[in-house]
Amino acid sequence: MSFSRVAIIGLGLLGGSIGLAVREHLAGVETTGHDVDPKVRERARQRGLVDTVVDDAADAVRDADLVILCVPVGAMASAAEAIAPGLSADAVVSDVGSSKLSVARALAAALPGATLIPAHPVAGTEESGPDAGFATLFHHRWCILTPPEDAPRDKVAALKKFWQALGSTVEVMDAEHHDLVLAVTSHIPHLIAYTIVGTASDLEDVTRSEVIKYSAGGFRDFTRIAASDPVMWRDVFLNNREAVLEMMDRFLTDLGMMREAIRAGDGELMFDQFSKTRAIRRRIVEQGQDDARPDFGRHDHE
Amino acid sequence: MSFSRVAIIGLGLLGGSIGLAVREHLAGVETTGHDVDPKVRERARQRGLVDTVVDDAADAVRDADLVILCVPVGAMASAAEAIAPGLSADAVVSDVGSSKLSVARALAAALPGATLIPAHPVAGTEESGPDAGFATLFHHRWCILTPPEDAPRDKVAALKKFWQALGSTVEVMDAEHHDLVLAVTSHIPHLIAYTIVGTASDLEDVTRSEVIKYSAGGFRDFTRIAASDPVMWRDVFLNNREAVLEMMDRFLTDLGMMREAIRAGDGELMFDQFSKTRAIRRRIVEQGQDDARPDFGRHDHE
Repeated sequence: MSFSRVAIIGLGLLGGSIGLAVREHLAGVETTGHDVDPKVRERARQRGLVDTVVDDAADAVRDADLVILCVPVGAMASAAEAIAPGLSADAVVSDVGSSKLSVARALAAALPGATLIPAHPVAGTEESGPDAGFATLFHHRWCILTPPEDAPRDKVAALKKFWQALGSTVEVMDAEHHDLVLAVTSHIPHLIAYTIVGTASDLEDVTRSEVIKYSAGGFRDFTRIAASDPVMWRDVFLNNREAVLEMMDRFLTDLGMMREAIRAGDGELMFDQFSKTRAIRRRIVEQGQDDARPDFGRHDHE
Repeated sequence: MSFSRVAIIGLGLLGGSIGLAVREHLAGVETTGHDVDPKVRERARQRGLVDTVVDDAADAVRDADLVILCVPVGAMASAAEAIAPGLSADAVVSDVGSSKLSVARALAAALPGATLIPAHPVAGTEESGPDAGFATLFHHRWCILTPPEDAPRDKVAALKKFWQALGSTVEVMDAEHHDLVLAVTSHIPHLIAYTIVGTASDLEDVTRSEVIKYSAGGFRDFTRIAASDPVMWRDVFLNNREAVLEMMDRFLTDLGMMREAIRAGDGELMFDQFSKTRAIRRRIVEQGQDDARPDFGRHDHE
């Protein structure tokens, strides 16, 4: 089986990119879309993010065989409630949320009896809203499915095929493990970036203007991540609390060790730590998960 | 006055880039260069990083009116000692070190009576060595001079002109303030990146392969910074200890506050914090200190 009518609820960076990617990669598949914000719906119509933008969420999903909720994880419950009256009995309901345990619970509560296959495409930029999406967002990126144990195999396979068509490589894992993995590869990096950018902008002895001027020393990279959507990220931390706190405490332990090495002037420990990390970078580049050009190729444009 | 013969000691990313940039931007200015590593000297000759690669440090500076030490800050003292026998009485000695108080002290001790004007071009990539340099590294970047109070004005002006010719905007400040500013815009970001990449690669419940696969969620950006030269960065932390520890403690206080907000489920505090940080990003992009394209333009290559 494969999907022929896809409904996208939430037309921001992720929802918009899915709509555009379906048009580019899945000829013949129809898309409908809805967003709670009328201004976003209007912009989505102008950009043609989906074939049909629908004003009512339940109407948007009425004939869909795949519904993808593309809203912040804190809004999944209300989005699920809004589509419930229109949902077909045999439709698959999926999502793109960055935490999976809490989303699985919210969808199961709001849509009893529905076929739920939560998903998380590990892709994005610091931009958000209906102007941010583009068709190639999922190329060479991983998409993680976290189907419950009783999910129908053919529907899991169809969702896998769907994401592969959009350019992703698909992995299946359980929701709990997903939340732990993403805490370290995504959530903690964002929390650290938001925090250090906040710290730097509130200093008294270093002006904000100085922080901006000399940001090319490393700081500017953190500001990109810290420019991500605040609502999305607030919801991630509210909904993946346990795993984030666990990983944060490991990071804090390691940072405390580095602090002590600096205080004690332990150059050997620092050198050893700083030497280990290059290998990881090399493998990320080799596996196509980042740009091989120095400085992300930024100098090519300067 | 302006410089007509520039000697570069250390032919890695920074030294090599200065050599190439002088050739591109300062016609008629001769360059000599030296590196303690014979393999680096050989590669520097092949790439033509400077007009003449010299095997002995003192010989390399013999007729130079500007000498720039481009070695890790922990190697400044020995580099200064090595050039001392060949140094002209009226030469200006400068450097590119990332910490300035400790370098000023090391140079003053090794070169009594010499004209010292420490400098720090805030530019770089994660690459290092004689193959890493390129002529445009300093374009649109800031270069900070930290001249001692008794530095001859005409020579400070000449060094300023030199860096402007290479494409930089020059700022003058005292060494102590420099070290505090760079602690927050460069040193702490690097320390955090090295630490979180270390934390992530040593986990038991999340494999290294998973960390690499799903790094596009934010982690990959940190690995770029954590791929920087380990010797250079060890030396930075050994030589800017006070300012780094001070800034780290402020960061740790803020991170503790975020930790508590997550523990307590305080979404309002998170939203407020995460909303403030977008403005800084916007100003960094407006002021030409980073790429305006989403995701550093990485998607343009995917």
